[in-house]
Amino acid sequence: MSAKNDGPVETGAQSSKSEQTRALILETAMRLFRERGYEKTTMRAIATEAGVSVGNAYYYFAGKEHLIQGFYDQLAAEHRVAVREVLERETDLEARLAGVLKVWLDIALPYHEFAVHFFKNAADPDSPLSPFSPESEHAREEAIRVHREVLAGAKTKVAPELRDVLPELMWLSQMGLVLYWIFDRTEGRERSYRLAERGARLTARGVSLARFRVLRPLVLEVHELFTDFLPGMTRVLPDPGGKGRRGQ
Amino acid sequence: MSAKNDGPVETGAQSSKSEQTRALILETAMRLFRERGYEKTTMRAIATEAGVSVGNAYYYFAGKEHLIQGFYDQLAAEHRVAVREVLERETDLEARLAGVLKVWLDIALPYHEFAVHFFKNAADPDSPLSPFSPESEHAREEAIRVHREVLAGAKTKVAPELRDVLPELMWLSQMGLVLYWIFDRTEGRERSYRLAERGARLTARGVSLARFRVLRPLVLEVHELFTDFLPGMTRVLPDPGGKGRRGQ
Repeated sequence: MSAKNDGPVETGAQSSKSEQTRALILETAMRLFRERGYEKTTMRAIATEAGVSVGNAYYYFAGKEHLIQGFYDQLAAEHRVAVREVLERETDLEARLAGVLKVWLDIALPYHEFAVHFFKNAADPDSPLSPFSPESEHAREEAIRVHREVLAGAKTKVAPELRDVLPELMWLSQMGLVLYWIFDRTEGRERSYRLAERGARLTARGVSLARFRVLRPLVLEVHELFTDFLPGMTRVLPDPGGKGRRGQ
Repeated sequence: MSAKNDGPVETGAQSSKSEQTRALILETAMRLFRERGYEKTTMRAIATEAGVSVGNAYYYFAGKEHLIQGFYDQLAAEHRVAVREVLERETDLEARLAGVLKVWLDIALPYHEFAVHFFKNAADPDSPLSPFSPESEHAREEAIRVHREVLAGAKTKVAPELRDVLPELMWLSQMGLVLYWIFDRTEGRERSYRLAERGARLTARGVSLARFRVLRPLVLEVHELFTDFLPGMTRVLPDPGGKGRRGQ
């Protein structure tokens, strides 16, 4: 179901043509979603605007939802590349996290208007378009992997039992920042950048405090609460205990 | 701007007539919002359906937004009455909080469908219809007061410097529950009730842990973060330091 499986197997010169067509369809779709809204835009309209046949459009993306997953994947991939510079330079946890969050705000800036209108589709955690859905797993895993790297390369020591759950909680707080950003109307989303800095500081202090053993059960419980109540989240990380944590 | 100032000064028999008219208009509005959507419902249509003149409708509610504030106030008032039984019976913090949250879910049940459709209007923290807006202050204060009482009547000791900020944070986590509930499609919103229980347990443990001094600055910083970045929130409680906490 993941968008990464929608395209054909790609090799050599053909692949680059194929990649270009895929990118063109995705770009056109994003423009039409922005201009006409997600609901009112059809696959046919996207194909026509992109100058490809409807069959060809469906060859790359099985439907509109897959286009959104493709967009999420593209954002996540761009983010992974752009954070390299921050992660190679900084060793301080707060600076690493703040850098990673601010790079996301940089990359997402052109899509702000779309995000405002698209929000109501993505806010439903049961929708395939939600960042918590099984369908968004690929983009979510990419994003959580970045947070794992933020922690791994920082001077701050992390308790072993928290090493698996903290990246997921950091990604959740990033989703909080995204929610704030969607509604941020300040020039250049200036408030969101400040929230990223403040949030990074708070997280770094929280991680430092977690060296106090008394706190660790609480961190684990917060994590368990989120994975129990957000659909799809349990699939992100293998269950360390080997048993199902969802009581459904 | 608050809805509680919209009605006339009420005394005696006239007041009960006046209250009835106000309640009738509010009830009719909520029904039309559910049936036709918030945007498509006009004050004229509400007045016609309620069998009052348009001028009379405007006498009680200066506009549609005021009707929503009136609805929030009504929910908060019903909640305050319904939680009495829980607060008089329970002395355990977890049981008090779980009870208060579950009573809210009971009261809100009939409005679930409306909440699903209305969500996109209330999710914008800058909208007057957001629970974080200055316009929603009255309902928010009522709700925070309930959480203050939850803490005050519990056996668990609360550190003095946290006594002012915890009720606000508990209310914020209640808003998280509301968000979850809006998207909850389980029979009788069963998952939301479970989340209320789990959330109450987590909060109670967090409050217990806050007796460790090392944690208190973190709790205060979380609180400061929210009050800095949520519009309207700073007005809820007087600033204990006497100086502005918002760096704008």
